[in-house]
Amino acid sequence: MIEGELDKRGEGMYDKMNGIGAHEVIVETPDHGSTLGQLSEKDFENALWAYQERILDLKKDERFRYVLIFKNHGEEAGASLAHSHSQLIALPVLPKRVMEEMEGAKKYYDYKDRCVFCDIIHQELKDKLRVVTESAEFLAITPYASRSPFELWLIPKRHSSSFVNTPETEYASLARIFRECLRRLYTGLGDPPYNFTLHTSPFNGMINDHYHWHFEIIPKLSKIAGFEIGSGFYINATPPEDAAAFLREVTL
Amino acid sequence: MIEGELDKRGEGMYDKMNGIGAHEVIVETPDHGSTLGQLSEKDFENALWAYQERILDLKKDERFRYVLIFKNHGEEAGASLAHSHSQLIALPVLPKRVMEEMEGAKKYYDYKDRCVFCDIIHQELKDKLRVVTESAEFLAITPYASRSPFELWLIPKRHSSSFVNTPETEYASLARIFRECLRRLYTGLGDPPYNFTLHTSPFNGMINDHYHWHFEIIPKLSKIAGFEIGSGFYINATPPEDAAAFLREVTL
Repeated sequence: MIEGELDKRGEGMYDKMNGIGAHEVIVETPDHGSTLGQLSEKDFENALWAYQERILDLKKDERFRYVLIFKNHGEEAGASLAHSHSQLIALPVLPKRVMEEMEGAKKYYDYKDRCVFCDIIHQELKDKLRVVTESAEFLAITPYASRSPFELWLIPKRHSSSFVNTPETEYASLARIFRECLRRLYTGLGDPPYNFTLHTSPFNGMINDHYHWHFEIIPKLSKIAGFEIGSGFYINATPPEDAAAFLREVTL
Repeated sequence: MIEGELDKRGEGMYDKMNGIGAHEVIVETPDHGSTLGQLSEKDFENALWAYQERILDLKKDERFRYVLIFKNHGEEAGASLAHSHSQLIALPVLPKRVMEEMEGAKKYYDYKDRCVFCDIIHQELKDKLRVVTESAEFLAITPYASRSPFELWLIPKRHSSSFVNTPETEYASLARIFRECLRRLYTGLGDPPYNFTLHTSPFNGMINDHYHWHFEIIPKLSKIAGFEIGSGFYINATPPEDAAAFLREVTL
């Protein structure tokens, strides 16, 4: 830990940003030919445990504000190594997107006195239209305003702001439904390239009432082009209701 | 013009958003085999005039808040038609990215009493390190925090918040430097795929002191993957100073 840098932490954000970070590769399997969805439930669960352990370890370094866990699968989705792996980047600042999501969730909470994600879960379980699969603890949906065809969110049913606070007993259940989602994509869409990202509360304020951790899986089936770059809006020709119905019907 | 929809305009933004818009394709040349940079200066200028004319025409429809002009060149950049063309999408809301840029520029102006883009121009002309080319009226730079290798900004030296207010006499000059930039990319990098977007003030507040219109050209040389999706930050391994030096040296 470098004291001089630590001293600067409170004084604003981007001004005092240091060139400090961590980048780790989480090798999900020793088998070079397997994809994540092809692993056994136990091996999948071990990858999730690795995420948790690495976040908790990096949290000890006070220079970091956030740990972003993500996976790029397939060349089109930016994977440069064929062997199945996830990645982790620890950052000395809160990423723009994380900040936006936190602020949006906080605003909703201040207005409604309810977590926006809990409300989404409630609504989706009632509507059923965008539910792909569910278990006692988790829900998989194609979100209402999906940015990409077959975008999938995997979200704990009980309110929980940080991934690392997931009860030990629920990891197997999370592995099972996460694996099922990836297998539905793999079989239904012919092993599409995809990215997933873990969305979880930053170190500063890990337990709160307004944010709700989840995974977002985004298949790379369309191109980000001038319109998306210039507007921040996404053109998606596949309604999430159709995507959910299609994924539900896939025979595993 | 549909009266019922017009009535709703003032009442908030996304709540009252209607499924209304315009999408136009601007065919830049009758020659199927030409790229935009290969056109004559006169033909290039005509494409710019078409942008201006279409924006001014669509501005008459009070349901629209913004017209986004963009171009996708090459399959990797999302072009689905080979024939050289730009596109225009008129929107009933201000796009997220445009809003962010406007707010950022406004914040800087309120703090410094100066346009942030005018300050950038001043700084870049002093440093020279990131200048690719310039004319009496325009400056082409690889911006300080380039998101992509060889990202290029084309910006009028004199403060001007809206593209459509460009003096008639400057269109030829803009066409000349824009064409030169595209040719430097084409020759230097072997016809790379790219997107460009016109950044200009929205209809509501077209003339202001804080915003400065410009074109942003983003070659598609790296992939947007999990890190970028999850953070909103961009990994770029080519320093803009190296990109500018490389592009300056290209023999046309």
